[in-house]
Amino acid sequence: MPLPRAITTLIGEFSRLPGVGKRGAERMVFDLVSASPERLESLIGSLRSVLEEVELCPTCGFFISNGECGLCCGRSRDCGSILVVESPQEVLAVENAGGYRGLYHVLGGHLSPLKGVGPGDLRMDTLSQRLANEEVQELILATSPTVEGDATALYIAREYHRDGLTITRLGRGVPMGGS
Amino acid sequence: MPLPRAITTLIGEFSRLPGVGKRGAERMVFDLVSASPERLESLIGSLRSVLEEVELCPTCGFFISNGECGLCCGRSRDCGSILVVESPQEVLAVENAGGYRGLYHVLGGHLSPLKGVGPGDLRMDTLSQRLANEEVQELILATSPTVEGDATALYIAREYHRDGLTITRLGRGVPMGGS
Repeated sequence: MPLPRAITTLIGEFSRLPGVGKRGAERMVFDLVSASPERLESLIGSLRSVLEEVELCPTCGFFISNGECGLCCGRSRDCGSILVVESPQEVLAVENAGGYRGLYHVLGGHLSPLKGVGPGDLRMDTLSQRLANEEVQELILATSPTVEGDATALYIAREYHRDGLTITRLGRGVPMGGS
Repeated sequence: MPLPRAITTLIGEFSRLPGVGKRGAERMVFDLVSASPERLESLIGSLRSVLEEVELCPTCGFFISNGECGLCCGRSRDCGSILVVESPQEVLAVENAGGYRGLYHVLGGHLSPLKGVGPGDLRMDTLSQRLANEEVQELILATSPTVEGDATALYIAREYHRDGLTITRLGRGVPMGGS
């Protein structure tokens, strides 16, 4: 293939993105290369600001930029309940749906012994600290409706069970594949 | 939405890529933000090398990096025929299929009066220069099998018709939507 090495490298980088195959990555890269240099510059600039500005909130695990988390305990949130999710995308889904005004806790994945993911690889220690230090009355487990998600929820429910803390799991009944 | 501005900007940039919607862009950006800083650095590096190294061959219009085009007239190519395509991706498809050893000419699009794309917006002048200066016996029109592609092929066939030059069009018969 007579493609310049810079292009094949970029295609490789793009095809590592979720939901992008080799052909899709090719289309994206060709579109970028054929576009104006300004567009590439602006993409590079955006990536750099994400790299430099965005970090994870040490408490809830969602993205923050200026060291302040708008989702953590504050005037506008109900600090009595924590919704435990696997990834920041689920926080966004719940926020966009509206209705929930409590706190969040992003685990960063689910337990998966086969892939070598144990409680130590997730943000479990932060969760136990929060349960010890914050006045939490309810823990809502919104892990994914898969075997691993269920196992993670079960682990949390058993591990953090204590008087005065209600542990609930999200209602089910989504269509197949709708998770 | 409580997302940092850097992330929403990046989602906007990604959703401009071909075949990527807002949700897909969100997934990609979240994957990148959650990934290691090294991966983001390497993506930025690859984009920058594409921006700095890659340019279009002034003759055929395909991507080159060190000023030398491996697809233009050289020892390994048959310089008597030129395959006219709309975009660099089609060059790649033909090259990967193997079999064709002639030259290429990338137009950079097709004629589309409704969108204001005339012959002056495509690489037609370079094509006419090549036909005047190179010893070309055959011009193969491989524009896309759409109304605009046909119109472009017809335009070229009428415009560059001359004795000693065979102008052909690619065989058709692809399934609906398979173009």
